[in-house]
Amino acid sequence: MKKAAAGPRFALGVDFGTNSVRALLVDVADGTELVTHVVDYPSGEQGILLDPKDPNLARQNPADYVEGFYESVSAVVRAAKRRRGFRPEHVVGIGIDTTGSTPIPVDRQGTPLAMKRQFANNLDAHAWLWKDHTSAAEAAEITRKAARAKDRYLSKCGGTYSSEWYWSKILHCRRAAPDVFDAAYAWVELSDFLPAFLTGNTDPHTLPRGICAAGHKAMYHEQWGGLPGKAFLRSLDPKLAALRDRYASRALTSDQKAGGLVAAVAEKVGLPPGVPVNVGALDAHMGAVGSGIKRGRLVKIIGTSTCDMMVAPMDNDLPDVPGLCGIVPGSIVPGMYGLEAGQSAVGDIFNWFVSYLTPARYAHGDPHANLTRDAEHLKPGESGLLALDWNNGNRTILVDPLLSGLLLGQTLHTTAAEIYRALVEATAFGALTIINRLEEYGVEVREVVNCGGIAEKNPFVMQVYADVSNRPMKISRSAQACALGAAIFGAVVGGAYKSVGAAQRRMTGVKPLVYRPNKAASKTYAELYRLYRQLHDAFGTTGYRGRMENVMKDLIAIRNRVRTGRD
Amino acid sequence: MKKAAAGPRFALGVDFGTNSVRALLVDVADGTELVTHVVDYPSGEQGILLDPKDPNLARQNPADYVEGFYESVSAVVRAAKRRRGFRPEHVVGIGIDTTGSTPIPVDRQGTPLAMKRQFANNLDAHAWLWKDHTSAAEAAEITRKAARAKDRYLSKCGGTYSSEWYWSKILHCRRAAPDVFDAAYAWVELSDFLPAFLTGNTDPHTLPRGICAAGHKAMYHEQWGGLPGKAFLRSLDPKLAALRDRYASRALTSDQKAGGLVAAVAEKVGLPPGVPVNVGALDAHMGAVGSGIKRGRLVKIIGTSTCDMMVAPMDNDLPDVPGLCGIVPGSIVPGMYGLEAGQSAVGDIFNWFVSYLTPARYAHGDPHANLTRDAEHLKPGESGLLALDWNNGNRTILVDPLLSGLLLGQTLHTTAAEIYRALVEATAFGALTIINRLEEYGVEVREVVNCGGIAEKNPFVMQVYADVSNRPMKISRSAQACALGAAIFGAVVGGAYKSVGAAQRRMTGVKPLVYRPNKAASKTYAELYRLYRQLHDAFGTTGYRGRMENVMKDLIAIRNRVRTGRD
Repeated sequence: MKKAAAGPRFALGVDFGTNSVRALLVDVADGTELVTHVVDYPSGEQGILLDPKDPNLARQNPADYVEGFYESVSAVVRAAKRRRGFRPEHVVGIGIDTTGSTPIPVDRQGTPLAMKRQFANNLDAHAWLWKDHTSAAEAAEITRKAARAKDRYLSKCGGTYSSEWYWSKILHCRRAAPDVFDAAYAWVELSDFLPAFLTGNTDPHTLPRGICAAGHKAMYHEQWGGLPGKAFLRSLDPKLAALRDRYASRALTSDQKAGGLVAAVAEKVGLPPGVPVNVGALDAHMGAVGSGIKRGRLVKIIGTSTCDMMVAPMDNDLPDVPGLCGIVPGSIVPGMYGLEAGQSAVGDIFNWFVSYLTPARYAHGDPHANLTRDAEHLKPGESGLLALDWNNGNRTILVDPLLSGLLLGQTLHTTAAEIYRALVEATAFGALTIINRLEEYGVEVREVVNCGGIAEKNPFVMQVYADVSNRPMKISRSAQACALGAAIFGAVVGGAYKSVGAAQRRMTGVKPLVYRPNKAASKTYAELYRLYRQLHDAFGTTGYRGRMENVMKDLIAIRNRVRTGRD
Repeated sequence: MKKAAAGPRFALGVDFGTNSVRALLVDVADGTELVTHVVDYPSGEQGILLDPKDPNLARQNPADYVEGFYESVSAVVRAAKRRRGFRPEHVVGIGIDTTGSTPIPVDRQGTPLAMKRQFANNLDAHAWLWKDHTSAAEAAEITRKAARAKDRYLSKCGGTYSSEWYWSKILHCRRAAPDVFDAAYAWVELSDFLPAFLTGNTDPHTLPRGICAAGHKAMYHEQWGGLPGKAFLRSLDPKLAALRDRYASRALTSDQKAGGLVAAVAEKVGLPPGVPVNVGALDAHMGAVGSGIKRGRLVKIIGTSTCDMMVAPMDNDLPDVPGLCGIVPGSIVPGMYGLEAGQSAVGDIFNWFVSYLTPARYAHGDPHANLTRDAEHLKPGESGLLALDWNNGNRTILVDPLLSGLLLGQTLHTTAAEIYRALVEATAFGALTIINRLEEYGVEVREVVNCGGIAEKNPFVMQVYADVSNRPMKISRSAQACALGAAIFGAVVGGAYKSVGAAQRRMTGVKPLVYRPNKAASKTYAELYRLYRQLHDAFGTTGYRGRMENVMKDLIAIRNRVRTGRD
């Protein structure tokens, strides 16, 4: 670690979420968070452009990202300047993270089509938001054809290509909106577009492409020479093959500098021109870095859904792990494999229950808090309920959007709080299933660090996770881990640290409060998890031919045992 | 049919329910219902004595029945006397029906122990209400031992003895409250106790015993000489065998006269002494008669739970039907087999949902009506949901209280009204399963007549039943079919008709409004029923080893087809 003698140094992390952008100014010496500012995107509904006729469609206005950067960063700089000792020249580097896969159709110069007059009102010419699910048929086709390909393009992303990913969306545009497809010279990931724009290098041929989005979302892997081969792309559509050559063919890790801030942008935000900007990456990966990810440490980013992130050394021979969203060299920490898993819905399931099924007595004030007050007094197994956490499908380990929720064990006295707890437990069982899968394939999970809204604000959920997984649950010190992760990369590209690991050791940490498993609870949950896993395998995998008749009876037996205090 | 020339003739039906007693005065000529009066039982909580320490316990004060008779019948007689042309001497007979199995421990004279000072506060000395579930262990033991018995005592009641039934409760009393057991000379069913008391013949040895409770609840069958043999009873407990000889060993059908109203009772209610009283029967069986049950006509009594009643001729060789609660000669209509099936919870499931899970927007006024308004506009399959109707176990065809509810297919957008509809559909699927089972064993269901609160008041539920079963749903003309059924037996024992069938032809009928199946809805429901049956067999039977992985995907496919209007 080197430290300039010139006084304080700061890094700026800019985290482009789905509904807002957050800028965070951090002291590179110890990660102290000086100023943060959040800007909601102005276009659409909470920043999202919707089609009333198609609930699967979710687009964004690329101009919102640019405006969001201007507004959030200039606000941070203005606020920081009011502090003693801060000068804009103290900002050594800027790190960028974004949602993804969020491909944007651009012209030959790299300008988003949506920013051109003739496409301004064409939803297909905007950014295709990660949660856009219009491309389910194309995803299935890609999965089918990739499975037959010699190069096993899906071996690094769990064996199934998602409708949320890069090629599915482009192929769907080719079929559903050929005018937009034909007008697009290339499709640039949002995490690449922003650094390109900020550093004045938007030419699709030359703009730096991040390994994170390329590897996790576009089937990029060195094993088959980068992107999938032209023959394969041609098998999807003849016109797709041309795209391969029009967008940087070599992908870079995020400790690389994309360029220096161009004068026009620098002026708008009150920073000196030339401040180094990193090669962008996806938000969850940056959040993992901001939570101090390292070998053996699982970072869970728990919000409406989860991302479960691990790193593994590249010196040993990591097998392909079935069901993982991706295994990509350098996608999280350069020099290590980045592993991404996740649950399609966690907070979203609790929110669904509160929005649609919360009785009046829990509705006043914060229904989550009200339900939690009753739910947290229940003992594991006491309700006799068991749920599957599949209301939005299953991302890991089944990689199957065509699944749905299940609740079992209801009596004539089952309460809302009991169901709420069962849903929380279901997401914990889903989380444990991911941990187990990692360990089955040799990726040892020695500790778990959580970040995101639920980790921050919900002790009840975190305690259930500790009890269900029978592991301590630690919480990331930073409540804005994604932006902090981006700032760490800003510090590295700004020369404050030689490596991401060195920066992490100084700039990240966990809170003193640790949720420790309760022995008795963990014992009951081990029984319940066996039943969860039985339902999971029966409804979620092909070929299950085991019995089911024990499930309700076992739950009743556990319930009776717990209620009579023999537990 | 004979009709006296002496002017108008009336029959009185007295229906002893769980929470109240209903007296109904009927014109025997055409079933016209003149006056009715309902009296709530005064003791306990809604007439039920509870133990705060044991939710399974449910007892009743036998004195409530006597008081309830006095109060309801005298009110009816008083009101009738205000009408022109009615005189108490016009009452030709009284019919009695009660809940059951509701055994009452009595002394040598037939006086309930609970009416004696030293047992007045002893819950075990009161009537053991049908819904008392304290005797689950004893029921399991009886099932186990009866299965080994040469005489196959359970062959006429579906193969499983219930904790709600006669011997389970007595055996439990022997073990849990030996002081009460030892003080009891005999255990008399409520449906026998009331006619005995009203006619002044309470001696357990000589009081007329009804075939209905004996056959359906006490394993009485002529095939093995009445009650189970002493050796069998001794195998349960040596002291049980003695009871066999202390309570009329031959059971009678309800068209038999138990005796004439004793003067003391007659005086209290304003009727002449000597009015014939029938041999009592259970309420559901009387309700079936009041709804015009006959060969090929299934009568469904739909309330918090259902009773599904059929009759079959005794000339052909009816096989034992697995899962039926009972097949008893003459238990409904004398001269025919009475078949009883049922669902453990129907209205109770809807009430559970409304009580525990109805969001504020549906809570004002009548939540059922509010939910129905949204639920009835949904198309079959549109929600993607499928439920099992087992929140209170499954009475027919699985005869298993150790089952529980299941809801499957939830998304992040599933609404309360969608779930409400899925629960209604689940009970309809359960109803269809009973129809199918009857027909599989040669009991043809040519028409369905419904009665009870839900049949009366809920067109939405009845339409779903019509669509799911693909059969017209008719509604009994009388809204108080049990009391009417009792009155019919009163008319028969009073000599107004020679047979129950003859009385039914004049005194019962169906409403003009018939719920007819919608062809398209029935088609989708046929698909959904296959999936219901798959879950039913997987979770409810032993030995299922089929696949499950199709269930969620099939529901999603049906949902997408229905929503896109290709259905």
